[in-house]
Amino acid sequence: MFDSHSFSTKKKKKSYFYNKKLTLNIKILGSNSASPAHGRHPSSQMLELDNSFYMIDCGEGTQFRLIENHLSYQKIEAIFISHLHGDHYLGLIGLLTTMSMNNREKKLDIIAPKGLKEIVDVQCLYSKTILRFPIEFHVIDTLSNQKIWENELMEVFSIPLVHKIETSGFLFKEKPKKRNIIKEKIQLLNIAVEDIIAIKNGADFTDKNGQLHSYESLTYQPHIPKIYAYCSDTEYSEAIIPIVSEIDLLYHEATFMDVHKARAAETKHSTSVQAATIAQKSNVKNLLIGHYSSRYENLDGLLDEAKGVFINTKLALEGDWYSV
Amino acid sequence: MFDSHSFSTKKKKKSYFYNKKLTLNIKILGSNSASPAHGRHPSSQMLELDNSFYMIDCGEGTQFRLIENHLSYQKIEAIFISHLHGDHYLGLIGLLTTMSMNNREKKLDIIAPKGLKEIVDVQCLYSKTILRFPIEFHVIDTLSNQKIWENELMEVFSIPLVHKIETSGFLFKEKPKKRNIIKEKIQLLNIAVEDIIAIKNGADFTDKNGQLHSYESLTYQPHIPKIYAYCSDTEYSEAIIPIVSEIDLLYHEATFMDVHKARAAETKHSTSVQAATIAQKSNVKNLLIGHYSSRYENLDGLLDEAKGVFINTKLALEGDWYSV
Repeated sequence: MFDSHSFSTKKKKKSYFYNKKLTLNIKILGSNSASPAHGRHPSSQMLELDNSFYMIDCGEGTQFRLIENHLSYQKIEAIFISHLHGDHYLGLIGLLTTMSMNNREKKLDIIAPKGLKEIVDVQCLYSKTILRFPIEFHVIDTLSNQKIWENELMEVFSIPLVHKIETSGFLFKEKPKKRNIIKEKIQLLNIAVEDIIAIKNGADFTDKNGQLHSYESLTYQPHIPKIYAYCSDTEYSEAIIPIVSEIDLLYHEATFMDVHKARAAETKHSTSVQAATIAQKSNVKNLLIGHYSSRYENLDGLLDEAKGVFINTKLALEGDWYSV
Repeated sequence: MFDSHSFSTKKKKKSYFYNKKLTLNIKILGSNSASPAHGRHPSSQMLELDNSFYMIDCGEGTQFRLIENHLSYQKIEAIFISHLHGDHYLGLIGLLTTMSMNNREKKLDIIAPKGLKEIVDVQCLYSKTILRFPIEFHVIDTLSNQKIWENELMEVFSIPLVHKIETSGFLFKEKPKKRNIIKEKIQLLNIAVEDIIAIKNGADFTDKNGQLHSYESLTYQPHIPKIYAYCSDTEYSEAIIPIVSEIDLLYHEATFMDVHKARAAETKHSTSVQAATIAQKSNVKNLLIGHYSSRYENLDGLLDEAKGVFINTKLALEGDWYSV
């Protein structure tokens, strides 16, 4: 059954940014494939984890979508680009320029297949633009599933996808949070403040009677780490199943309906039935589909076909947040 | 006095495309400088002349603006790029890709300073994109005022501008139309059909009494050719005055108000007073200002200051047509 709590769609207000959340959230900024159509835009998503922000793909006009959605581009810590088709990265150079003109100082990591740095550099050369903040480019080996980036909150792994050019999906894996002390134990065993800190950091504790207590018995895990995977663009590929197995939320492209599956194969894209089949075979908790062909103004058919295979499917709709 | 006929602002409907017009029209697609703000977008304009279409600058997201304004990108014959700052060309590669994906076959001319072809080529290389229609790049010598392009309807001249990088304005000069025969003369002199064609092409005519009539005396000019100049981005430069002297409509950037004129000088932009001073000294018929700094949400101050110097000034407003 669909669990609305773990996969709720909500519009958040500007003030949202000042609420600490423990969940991982995804905002859809662009959901269409190739060219803009029907009010939909090229691919981009914002991932939020504990009030830190990460962009996934950056199609043309993404900086406009950020303004419309009251999202601060200066808070973005890293941008992950799946591949160098224009509908997935053409908004990057404009966004970088805007960041720089508005006095960004904070370092930005850009994780992408080979070539993006060269594309950025040639444009900076002819515009005589000096981006006034540090950028570190990380080149993805798009053939391997390996850790490509991490910070204190999460690890990110590449997912090899099968498309017309080098393409990588991304697996975002929240790191476990520090365990919390069980409050009743503090009084019961008369634990001092300095010992509480040590226990939370993994030290066992000996009480005044000389009895040893494991730190696990004195603490609890406050939060189960979440995992989100982004797979766009790709033909149907069962090779990704072991990588996304059992995760909380899978975004999988679903460019075409079943009637156009020959076109999907030809262009190395997936149908919504294929996306749902991957979700079902991977036993993920929930599936989000997107990257819609411009031929579909109404998306109900894509959703219905996917739900026929995997009931916990939702459409990626621009402007909506999806809490993992 | 302001002549509302020769410089009218009008929103045109989709059906407009099927009406032949003899006037030259400008549609504003983007009016802001640098980054998008206040619902305004980076620079772009569409010039229409006798149902043929030409784009001037192509900031990020211009293809979205075309959709919103029901303009067909496939009809564009040539794209003129003033300089390689991102807010003037970043929408180009997405637009070219969309043209190609939608089966454009018609040749496109792209007229720009040096570097644009290299920028397009490196992006096509990494995306393995082959644009399936012919593109001819024309490199502008941004230091000279010379003819850079023409077709059967108009000639286009470069206007050397003074900015942080190589920048050219554009003077669009409608070619004279074929003269029309004065109908009364046909009956009066018993002119045969084949002679009418010859006269319209410039041949003099000898009537049955042996009297010679000059073709000018038998025909009239149906339309006075119009001239439009686009000058963005530039610091105040009186060198352009002889080039734009007496023209019908001058678009001149007016990034700043007078209070920020030091900032204008520093960034090699103009104030609205400076734009109006150029218009006044050039004795142009009308002035259109744009390329507004994001610091101005309300544009009334820019307009008021310009009108204090040159009364026939209008603000360039996105979505509006300006008939020259």
